[in-house]
Amino acid sequence: MTDRPYSGPLKGLRILEIGHFIAAPFCTRVLADLGADVIKIEPPAGDPVRKWGAAVEGRSLWWSVHARNKRSIALNLKASGAVDVVRRIVRDCDAVVENFRPGQLARMGLGNDVLRADNPGLVIGHVSGFGQDGPYRDRAAFGVVGEAIGGLRYLSDHAPGTSDLPPVRAGVSIGDSLAGLYAALGIAASLWQRDRTGGDGRGRTLDVALTDSVLSMMEGMLPEYGELGRIRQPSGSRIPTAAPSSAYPSRDGKWVVIAGNSEPLFQRLAGLMYRRDLIDDPRFADNPARVANVAALDAIIEGWTRQHDAAALLSLLEQADVPSTKIYDAADCAADPQYALRGMVRQVEDPHLGRTLTHPGIVPLVTDDPGDIRWCGPDIGEHTDEVLTGAGYTPEAIGALRADRVIA
Amino acid sequence: MTDRPYSGPLKGLRILEIGHFIAAPFCTRVLADLGADVIKIEPPAGDPVRKWGAAVEGRSLWWSVHARNKRSIALNLKASGAVDVVRRIVRDCDAVVENFRPGQLARMGLGNDVLRADNPGLVIGHVSGFGQDGPYRDRAAFGVVGEAIGGLRYLSDHAPGTSDLPPVRAGVSIGDSLAGLYAALGIAASLWQRDRTGGDGRGRTLDVALTDSVLSMMEGMLPEYGELGRIRQPSGSRIPTAAPSSAYPSRDGKWVVIAGNSEPLFQRLAGLMYRRDLIDDPRFADNPARVANVAALDAIIEGWTRQHDAAALLSLLEQADVPSTKIYDAADCAADPQYALRGMVRQVEDPHLGRTLTHPGIVPLVTDDPGDIRWCGPDIGEHTDEVLTGAGYTPEAIGALRADRVIA
Repeated sequence: MTDRPYSGPLKGLRILEIGHFIAAPFCTRVLADLGADVIKIEPPAGDPVRKWGAAVEGRSLWWSVHARNKRSIALNLKASGAVDVVRRIVRDCDAVVENFRPGQLARMGLGNDVLRADNPGLVIGHVSGFGQDGPYRDRAAFGVVGEAIGGLRYLSDHAPGTSDLPPVRAGVSIGDSLAGLYAALGIAASLWQRDRTGGDGRGRTLDVALTDSVLSMMEGMLPEYGELGRIRQPSGSRIPTAAPSSAYPSRDGKWVVIAGNSEPLFQRLAGLMYRRDLIDDPRFADNPARVANVAALDAIIEGWTRQHDAAALLSLLEQADVPSTKIYDAADCAADPQYALRGMVRQVEDPHLGRTLTHPGIVPLVTDDPGDIRWCGPDIGEHTDEVLTGAGYTPEAIGALRADRVIA
Repeated sequence: MTDRPYSGPLKGLRILEIGHFIAAPFCTRVLADLGADVIKIEPPAGDPVRKWGAAVEGRSLWWSVHARNKRSIALNLKASGAVDVVRRIVRDCDAVVENFRPGQLARMGLGNDVLRADNPGLVIGHVSGFGQDGPYRDRAAFGVVGEAIGGLRYLSDHAPGTSDLPPVRAGVSIGDSLAGLYAALGIAASLWQRDRTGGDGRGRTLDVALTDSVLSMMEGMLPEYGELGRIRQPSGSRIPTAAPSSAYPSRDGKWVVIAGNSEPLFQRLAGLMYRRDLIDDPRFADNPARVANVAALDAIIEGWTRQHDAAALLSLLEQADVPSTKIYDAADCAADPQYALRGMVRQVEDPHLGRTLTHPGIVPLVTDDPGDIRWCGPDIGEHTDEVLTGAGYTPEAIGALRADRVIA
């Protein structure tokens, strides 16, 4: 797939990733999906994500997605000589994204001043757990810690008093991915200001923290606390300000999400349940009343949903135009016709495995310039020679670097 | 605050929001935080979010954040004459973001061809529940439905067999916010390609679906299913591939997150618990062994954490440099010194209320061009006259539009 031309709104950009794990690589996955040429520096032993999750023939399937469209160079950043290689590559880059511990790149001789020495307009995105300054900057950037400090974990729980179990993780490393997305946005925004006709040519510096990224999603939480002393509480499967809206059990042991939280929707739902009496019940007469009496209301709805299998419930709810869905698992996502039609679930040839893999599509979908999954996650150093040649190294110089174990 | 100059990497952009609820307005909040001039079209009755969440003097506190830095014009899109107003405003805009049901703007006379009639380079971002095409396009865009179809809700749960309660919501409208973030990225990327020196001048079209945005965060879920038939399962408070990492209860009834899932971290944690014998226990000798025996291991750790108050636990864990934290609630976030130092929790003057409110800061933090919270969420139509004057309307013409109830 390598010979297909670049396309997408970021075609023409070149980004250097000096990253590992999730946050910085997620940032560059998104940028590469949109057409940027992403060069990833990997240690000769590879990014640890290569060993995460389920594997086929020793190859992580997540990696196939996480590193798609990127070029990998295997570079030992601890070797003397590595700094020079990075400087020569970065000369032709528009941005660098890194997620080492704050200050670590500078200690390896790759501070911002060095990176910009031959490229003053370079945009530099630092991604970390807690930020590049402040009392927490040296703490280890574990996603579960950052999500808890961001305020999200407290809310991913059942309502107080409902369960003795701890609040759950979101189920994916959402804090890392959010930081990666914010970094991608900051890079695109900085490059717009730098490069636009009449632009300022400046290379801006981003300091994206996982904690900050999570906190920024917390809606009214901060002013509601600051002004009223109100501590936002988890509400489990429900929405605290709208009812009915929850996940209800079906006869065959599935969960069905039903959102009947407006007057017409609630009336249609009541009709479906042969309980039109509920519409005139003062406990359920409007949304505030329904929220106040949500336990009684949900018990009635659950009494109905338990009498039907999920497929029958969904068919009834769809006919009545009440927003609802099964809670999708991986198999449901893979089989969904809407995703297939939109290219959001697609088969991608992975030549490393000699077969097609199921990948998520490219988001955001740019309908008139949608970009491309040009290749799947590369081998370690698959593009070392190509990238170094592009940076001006001769075959002899590349051989010498390899002999010196600067590159693998 | 209105007279402070615009700053931030998107300074010089003008974005028109024809949105409501969460997704499109979150997109424009982020763009406005980075310096764009965002004009929000509101119906004369206002965006429904003005009535969501806790309020002071009838003013939603969430609104103060959600609409900050935006200019509001009160426009009745159903009135004849409204199309002309939008066309005149959009002439000077770089992008439009909307989240009506697919096709609805076109039915109101504001299809893409009309929006671009006087501005062919306009970038148009459509945000919806399921996308602008396909069998689901006309379904109501409820966040809880989209999150369930995206695959996230299935994972926000305790491990199978652990609890009879349904999977929880993330606690915020994460699907909407993710779609908004992806839309912001797509707009910035499209504008970079359009505006860069030698750029193509094209106005691209985005079709951002809430479902797609959630699905894109699901890591290795799709290829793992496609290749191995493996359905990713929820793991509650734990991480399925690393142990120990969970939330543990303290003596005083709090939850403490502890991530001891590497050899050195586990050894330090064992030492803290006076259980160095665990290090040589074959059940816990390495990460795969610990994952296989995680229930036994977590029971031992919980036995220890239950003997101490949260503050004491955190102090011990910090001294031993084991990643850990209290699960923050709103009060913890508001009081955190790292957030304060980084401007991520800050006091903002809200003149509508005549007092300062606690706001989240601007993410991504661009250290050398950080943008500004220039004002809090405006009143309905606070900037109608200003914006229409800027679009070339005379005071008489504005008066006539108001008399005709096109504007409020």
